[in-house]
Amino acid sequence: MTLALEQAKFAQNQDEVPIGAVIVQQGQVIASAHNLCESLKDPTAHAELLAIQKACAALGEMRLSDCELYVTLEPCAMCAGAISHARLAKVIYGAYDPKGGAIDHGAKVFQSPNCLHRPDVISGVDENESKQLLQSFFLAKR
Amino acid sequence: MTLALEQAKFAQNQDEVPIGAVIVQQGQVIASAHNLCESLKDPTAHAELLAIQKACAALGEMRLSDCELYVTLEPCAMCAGAISHARLAKVIYGAYDPKGGAIDHGAKVFQSPNCLHRPDVISGVDENESKQLLQSFFLAKR
Repeated sequence: MTLALEQAKFAQNQDEVPIGAVIVQQGQVIASAHNLCESLKDPTAHAELLAIQKACAALGEMRLSDCELYVTLEPCAMCAGAISHARLAKVIYGAYDPKGGAIDHGAKVFQSPNCLHRPDVISGVDENESKQLLQSFFLAKR
Repeated sequence: MTLALEQAKFAQNQDEVPIGAVIVQQGQVIASAHNLCESLKDPTAHAELLAIQKACAALGEMRLSDCELYVTLEPCAMCAGAISHARLAKVIYGAYDPKGGAIDHGAKVFQSPNCLHRPDVISGVDENESKQLLQSFFLAKR
């Protein structure tokens, strides 16, 4: 999660919403990314999606069944869907996101009856640090 | 939808699951794409996501508020989430997808309480042709 938070800080330095993600396979980091929506003018360029794309490219595989995703904020519906498609074994996330999250809030994608793959989920890891990064970013924007 | 079906046939010719998508702005096609998961080894390379990325790149905009998405199959949770993020005005889709769909089935992303943007949705347009393409593709795979 320390590395995911580092990615979130990289995002902040580029005036992007500070969210970072890292994918680990058997203890080794195989992909890391941060939110790039503004720079790329791409609403799909969330940290999780970019990390999944990088990890799949690195392994030459569509499935990340023996991998774990660390991300600083609760994934949205788009990213939760991508996590299922990639068959990630585990998701460890930082701050809860009642406004946009779709794991423990909203659409609760992994709990839907037709969800094809449900990863293990650990919520609220280093929650405060993730939350503070986001809060100070949006406060500075006002 | 005819153009989206054409995209789906392109996918089939590349041994990809035959799903196609087209984005239209004021009557003009600005992006079209088909599923490329196998070729790219990328589980996020769904027709809708690729079409959204292309449309945003074409316009240099993160928002597609005056655009409509035509897609041959009911979008999954990932793509429904991306549709919300892109603020698409309308989604017109072909075949219903009880196994993987997330608009009229499963997570029903646009009906979730924290969904930030709900497009108008028209379901089942040219349903049979979309369904037949998918059925014959999977039948040939067995």
